[in-house]
Amino acid sequence: MRLRNKPWAKERIQNYPQYVIQNPEQWKGKWNELFQNEHPIHIEIGTGKGKFITEMAKQHPDINFIGIETYTSVIVSALDKLIEAELTNLKLLNINAIQLESIFAPGEISVIYLNFSDPWPKNRHEKRRLTHRSFLEKYQKIMQHGGQIHFKTDNQKLFEYSLVSFSEFGMILTDVNLDLHHSDFKGNIMTEYEEKFSAKGNRIYRCEAKFPEKNK
Amino acid sequence: MRLRNKPWAKERIQNYPQYVIQNPEQWKGKWNELFQNEHPIHIEIGTGKGKFITEMAKQHPDINFIGIETYTSVIVSALDKLIEAELTNLKLLNINAIQLESIFAPGEISVIYLNFSDPWPKNRHEKRRLTHRSFLEKYQKIMQHGGQIHFKTDNQKLFEYSLVSFSEFGMILTDVNLDLHHSDFKGNIMTEYEEKFSAKGNRIYRCEAKFPEKNK
Repeated sequence: MRLRNKPWAKERIQNYPQYVIQNPEQWKGKWNELFQNEHPIHIEIGTGKGKFITEMAKQHPDINFIGIETYTSVIVSALDKLIEAELTNLKLLNINAIQLESIFAPGEISVIYLNFSDPWPKNRHEKRRLTHRSFLEKYQKIMQHGGQIHFKTDNQKLFEYSLVSFSEFGMILTDVNLDLHHSDFKGNIMTEYEEKFSAKGNRIYRCEAKFPEKNK
Repeated sequence: MRLRNKPWAKERIQNYPQYVIQNPEQWKGKWNELFQNEHPIHIEIGTGKGKFITEMAKQHPDINFIGIETYTSVIVSALDKLIEAELTNLKLLNINAIQLESIFAPGEISVIYLNFSDPWPKNRHEKRRLTHRSFLEKYQKIMQHGGQIHFKTDNQKLFEYSLVSFSEFGMILTDVNLDLHHSDFKGNIMTEYEEKFSAKGNRIYRCEAKFPEKNK
C-alpha cells in the first residue's frame, strides 16, 4: 500500500480511545470485559482501511471483532468507518502483529483473518510473511484449540507458500477456493484491495485452516 | 476419456506378459524380485496411454515404475510405447485401483502419481474420486512412511477437493503449484491430456503431499 503521510493521524486516533484502544496490553486476558459479553473474538491482522472488519462487525453482532493495523495513517480510515457505524462489537489496535502475545492471552482468540497480506516475494524476506511459521506459532499461542485462520489473497505465490506453511505446521485445511469470485461461496465481504484487484481480472484465492484440536 | 472398443486389445496385452504383468497378486511383496533390483517403486494410477510413465522410466533408470490402468483398450497404447522403448524398469498392470492392497504389500511403494484423474464432479460420486479418503487409506497401506502422492489436474474443483482431502487425512502438503506451465517447476513430463488441455489455455494445478512419518 502506498502510504500518505498524515501527521494529524496519531492525534485523531488518540481522540477516540473507545474505538482505537490505547495500551492494549492492559486488556490481555480480559478482552471480553472490554466488550462486556462472552462472545467469541475474531481479529484481522492488517486491517487496512477497515472495510472488511467493519462490514463483518455489522453482519455478525454476536461476534467481537478487533482490527489490527500497524500504520497509523491507514488505520484512521478504518476509524472513520467505525465512527460512522457506531459499532460496539468492533475495536481497533494500532500495533504490529509481532506484539500479539503481549496483547492476547492463550485461547482468547477463535478466528484470525488475513486479507491480502504483503506477499514479501523475495526469499530473504520470507520471515516477514504473515503465514510464515514464526507467525503461526504466535497465532497458535493466542488461539483456542481448533482455532481457524481465514486467508484471502490475489497473490498466487503467497497462496502456494501459505498452503504449504499451514500444512507443514500441522494445520488442517478445511476449505480451499481457487477462484473466489467465480464460485458459489456465500457471504464474501470484499476488502478495498480485493475490489481493486478483482476489477483488474485477478483471481482471488481463499482458504480456511485450523489448528489441531487438543490432544490430537 | 472417450473409449474406443478394441476387441483385439485383451489378446495383445496377453502376448506381452513381460510388460503387462498377468496375475499381479503373485508378486505382492516381491516386486523387487521381478525388477531384479532394490530400487524404489513408483506407481501411476490411471496411466492412460502411458506417455508420462514411459518418459519417467526413461529419465529415471534408478527407479522402478508401474503403470496401472483399468481400461484394456487404453493400456494397449501404453504397451505400444513400452515395446518401442524396451524399458526394464517399467511394468504395466491392467487392473482397477480398488485392488491395490491385493497387489502390493505394506511399505512396498514410495511414490504414487495421480495425473488428471476423473473429477467425478457430482457429489454423489465423491467416493469414486482417487483422492477420496477411502483411496488415501488404500494408498497409505501399501506405502512407506513418508510416502508421497504427486498429483496433477486441470480440474479446479477436484484440486480444491483434493487439497482438503489430503489435509484432513493428516497428509502434509510439501509443494503446491497453481499454474504449473507458467512456473519455474523443472522436469515436468506432460501427459497426453495435459498437452491437450493446456493447449486450450487451461491452468494445470499440481501438488505433492506426504503421509506422516511413523510415530509422529
